[in-house]
Amino acid sequence: MFEMNTTETYNQLLKSIREIAHFGATRSLLSWDQETYMPSRGATSRAEQLAAMSGLIHERITSDSIRKLLDDLGADSELGPEAVTNIRETRKQHDRATRVPRDLVTEMARTSSLASEAWKKARAEEDFESFAPWLEKTFELKRRYADCIGYQTEAYDALLDEFEPDASGEWISSLFDPLREALGPLVASIVESDVTPLDLTQFTYDIETQKELSRAILKAIGFEFEAGRLDIAAHPFCSGINVDDVRLTSRYEENDFTGALYSAMHEGGHGLYEQGFNRDHAYTPMASSISLGVHESQSRFWENMIGRSQPFCHLLYPELQKRFPEACQHFDIESLYKAINKVAPSFIRVESDEITYNLHVILRFEIEREVLAGHLPVLKIPDAWNEKMESALGILPSKPSLGALQDVHWSFGLIGYFPTYTLGNIYSAHLNQALRNDHPQLDDEIRKGSFATPLKWMRENVYRHGMRYKPVELIERACGQPISPSPLVEYLKNKFEPIYQK
Amino acid sequence: MFEMNTTETYNQLLKSIREIAHFGATRSLLSWDQETYMPSRGATSRAEQLAAMSGLIHERITSDSIRKLLDDLGADSELGPEAVTNIRETRKQHDRATRVPRDLVTEMARTSSLASEAWKKARAEEDFESFAPWLEKTFELKRRYADCIGYQTEAYDALLDEFEPDASGEWISSLFDPLREALGPLVASIVESDVTPLDLTQFTYDIETQKELSRAILKAIGFEFEAGRLDIAAHPFCSGINVDDVRLTSRYEENDFTGALYSAMHEGGHGLYEQGFNRDHAYTPMASSISLGVHESQSRFWENMIGRSQPFCHLLYPELQKRFPEACQHFDIESLYKAINKVAPSFIRVESDEITYNLHVILRFEIEREVLAGHLPVLKIPDAWNEKMESALGILPSKPSLGALQDVHWSFGLIGYFPTYTLGNIYSAHLNQALRNDHPQLDDEIRKGSFATPLKWMRENVYRHGMRYKPVELIERACGQPISPSPLVEYLKNKFEPIYQK
Repeated sequence: MFEMNTTETYNQLLKSIREIAHFGATRSLLSWDQETYMPSRGATSRAEQLAAMSGLIHERITSDSIRKLLDDLGADSELGPEAVTNIRETRKQHDRATRVPRDLVTEMARTSSLASEAWKKARAEEDFESFAPWLEKTFELKRRYADCIGYQTEAYDALLDEFEPDASGEWISSLFDPLREALGPLVASIVESDVTPLDLTQFTYDIETQKELSRAILKAIGFEFEAGRLDIAAHPFCSGINVDDVRLTSRYEENDFTGALYSAMHEGGHGLYEQGFNRDHAYTPMASSISLGVHESQSRFWENMIGRSQPFCHLLYPELQKRFPEACQHFDIESLYKAINKVAPSFIRVESDEITYNLHVILRFEIEREVLAGHLPVLKIPDAWNEKMESALGILPSKPSLGALQDVHWSFGLIGYFPTYTLGNIYSAHLNQALRNDHPQLDDEIRKGSFATPLKWMRENVYRHGMRYKPVELIERACGQPISPSPLVEYLKNKFEPIYQK
Repeated sequence: MFEMNTTETYNQLLKSIREIAHFGATRSLLSWDQETYMPSRGATSRAEQLAAMSGLIHERITSDSIRKLLDDLGADSELGPEAVTNIRETRKQHDRATRVPRDLVTEMARTSSLASEAWKKARAEEDFESFAPWLEKTFELKRRYADCIGYQTEAYDALLDEFEPDASGEWISSLFDPLREALGPLVASIVESDVTPLDLTQFTYDIETQKELSRAILKAIGFEFEAGRLDIAAHPFCSGINVDDVRLTSRYEENDFTGALYSAMHEGGHGLYEQGFNRDHAYTPMASSISLGVHESQSRFWENMIGRSQPFCHLLYPELQKRFPEACQHFDIESLYKAINKVAPSFIRVESDEITYNLHVILRFEIEREVLAGHLPVLKIPDAWNEKMESALGILPSKPSLGALQDVHWSFGLIGYFPTYTLGNIYSAHLNQALRNDHPQLDDEIRKGSFATPLKWMRENVYRHGMRYKPVELIERACGQPISPSPLVEYLKNKFEPIYQK
């Protein structure tokens, strides 16, 4: 009798979870449409629709009926690991949502909206001080928020947990510190090198042909267009509405086919993850991504470890020749490979390369952690930024838009988000290493245009698990060793030292 | 004190109404996306999302809190005509939704889904009898539904009321009977005429250029693309997500520019109505369409009374010459005018012309009304159809797909929907007559490409009123005379007798 009851209770919970998932998918479509096809005057109403859907989802996840079902289910594990995952993650969402009072949620939403407007203005006017009060308020609200959620060591951990479950500031430091130390000399030796990769942006590439190329490559790596799309948006993103409807966006410039292609492969990596969830668990945490870091491990893996690899250039070059014969007269496979792997210290994170990107991220992580802890006043951020920039990359931003005002994240209240970018790189290097240990012939397959092996491996080891394992457990199970920055450092050295002739 | 209380209660009601409107707009986006951009495998999840949103809207509109607010507000009219409209229409929705038991709603939804599948199969196999049980069940459910809603004279009126408030079978008969009588001789004389309009489909028209033409014409008549879109869909439609986001779809064939252009103008007419609501009343019944008939009056007005008029051909022809110079060598303004106004008895409603279209609709109205009343068995529909077809148009369908199986409506449970098409034509003729009485110079303006006068007139007399007036009152206020089929008959005679040289 007891088991019967538990099963019924779980089925009731599943029903509620799935309904909330359908509302979440619907909200995702509203957001996707806003960035792609919505007419400009629709913006005000769209904000209202999104607010109504968010309010609804909050209402449902905090409802007494869900609380009751969760209480009845307790920590019972007789239903199997999938059910345990779904119950655990639903409880986590419920607890998070109920712990934060509604007026704090409202104030955070209002502040985020006003602060991002203030950020836009401050960036345009190169005026960090006018943005500082907004940033102070944002951090203050985030401290209150973290207090509501609860944490063991530092407030930062409560914020991190939303993006990267079970991560802590201390743990991330233990990964990022040695990474920074290892990357410093690598960057320095590249700066000293006299290798100058070709500038591919001096040629032109028809935009419709670029679209067709992105589509062909996405198809080749296994992105299913029957269950997805590729559209245009100002800022490329991937929106996983559900496992059978995954939407990528990219953008196109006539003189830069690599921008569009690698945006497509990056978002395509996110998309393969979303399309790879187990359909049997659709609309539950078991078919949802476990963390931003794991998500990013996939975008980085497909963009960089596949897309910017030597064997991929062998595959890509003839495709480019077919489509852009004129431009291709000016470069060969080897110069293509070097051109798409150019490394150079620069000010803007989103324009930076595979190595220095991590130094940009580490800098932001260190600063936001210090500010949240109250050890660094907001007004001192630009100084701290410049100091770290000079120490890590040897360059000094001449204005705030090249420094502390370049990213929108903080103005949105996204504190604890930045480190997931480099965690993604660290995870992806682990996964890449394990995959290649299992499949030493991988480069040959890539050269021939076959991506079935890496896709199958990722599906097996990462995608199908959804939220079953926390990120660290997921990666360690897949790779059989504890997480460290070493595989990433090794990968970067092995790749870039030959390019820069060390 | 009492007034204060009433205002507060009304504001609370408004808050609920607006939230429901945002959910409704969101559901509209889900549907629009399904017909335009959704990847094919997304269909199953989309059905779940739509069901979740419909369930939610039903839950909200039938809620005790809305009931309480409506009870407290009573029939109080101190808040002004807009509030009275919003309260009245919300009460109507609430009453309708609460009167129908949930299991009947569920059974209708399930039957509609299965019956439309059965219809597809039956139509493909030319097998009316296999569809008959589904149609019987559909009519039976609709009888039960009408009993729940309530009616004075016949069950059909309760169904009509959902699409055309306050309409009755008897009233529609009183309009359609004389219309049928008047159109018979007009069709007969055209059939006897030896005028043969040119077949424009023998030429080709580049599809991208067709798209650009549709867009240019829509812009010219006043459709605002900052608050709307034009996309492609298999079956053209207009989706008014809200006043600032109105989405049209059309379809394109290389040998038929008129199909795409007049679909765009038809949907554009619907779109002008949706964009013409009073923004101050956004998300309330005061900024919603009052009926399908009134909606159709706008699509028909802009498609036929503007778009297929002689002065419009004077405007259109040079635009065609610019875009399709080769095809235009084979026709002039006069032959264009005759070609787009070809009249001929035919089997398929959606392919029929401005005159015979009404005879198709009247036939369906008469049949569905008889079946619902239990006077005509479902299995006798094909006989009744053929008889009426022969009597009205002198032609006899050789197979069910050309007869009683051609339309999807009944399989969806849309009974009482068909007559709104011809009501729309009747309304549009009234509006057209009144507009031209007010503005005798209209043809000159159209010839010059100016559509400001008809748009302003429609906004003033129709659009801005939203649901304030019931259809009959709305049209009679706009035109100053009681509704009758005469303006439509007169308009059709004045237009088509000269074309067919009577």
